[in-house]
Amino acid sequence: MAEPRSKEQRRRDTEQRLAGDIDLWVASAAPGGDAYLVPLSFDWDGTAVLVATPAKSPTGRNLAASGVARLGLGVTRDVSMIDGEVEVLELDALPSEQADRFAARSGFDPREESSEYRWFRITPRRIQAWREADELRDRELMRDGAWLV
Amino acid sequence: MAEPRSKEQRRRDTEQRLAGDIDLWVASAAPGGDAYLVPLSFDWDGTAVLVATPAKSPTGRNLAASGVARLGLGVTRDVSMIDGEVEVLELDALPSEQADRFAARSGFDPREESSEYRWFRITPRRIQAWREADELRDRELMRDGAWLV
Repeated sequence: MAEPRSKEQRRRDTEQRLAGDIDLWVASAAPGGDAYLVPLSFDWDGTAVLVATPAKSPTGRNLAASGVARLGLGVTRDVSMIDGEVEVLELDALPSEQADRFAARSGFDPREESSEYRWFRITPRRIQAWREADELRDRELMRDGAWLV
Repeated sequence: MAEPRSKEQRRRDTEQRLAGDIDLWVASAAPGGDAYLVPLSFDWDGTAVLVATPAKSPTGRNLAASGVARLGLGVTRDVSMIDGEVEVLELDALPSEQADRFAARSGFDPREESSEYRWFRITPRRIQAWREADELRDRELMRDGAWLV
């Protein structure tokens, strides 16, 4: 068994996933309380996670209504969990350079879809990262939007 | 690129994951509407997914209050999504044979923990499975608790 990682290492691992992974899990909830969960492609600009999904999909409606999301990066035994605040943008409201970057990274361009997509910019407020039970301690890496390490 | 899988194949793949995977993603929501998401170990008895988490954790409180969960099995580009109904059981209410089976499969025995754990039996009502966009069609495998294939 490897030793538990330091917080510094977990931050580096999390930033590497944010910079290089293609998809993450997006959990959202309806105002009434039903939880929803889907994998979506994303981009990361160093500040916020960018995803796109149809305005009328469960995730699209939930994110617009609640303004918050919980994201899961990685696999079940090597996760970075992100609680974030959501900003909703109509497709043409995002600078085309950012939209192009998203399309290049994900292989998917929501501007070419027939259904009405929206952008959702999710800014992390809290980040945790752990692999196994021995890493549950020290899992908190960001609080109130500020890195702790 | 592989051809989209048949519904029959997706059911077989989903049942194989249920029978053999160790962890899945559990999305739940607070009554107020905040979404929560964590990976948890699970067992599958052919009818329901069994997980264990502390009664006072966000997931433990949400599942007990809402009675529903959305589960993600697999990885972001090969998922089975399960919407299920939740039954809450105190630790000693589950037959010890089932608890032993859970502990053997997951390597984790909630009966040995110092904090107050509970069992959550999650019975699928709806199951979907897809890999890439070309599999979004035909993704529904179970509806109202009955397999469609």
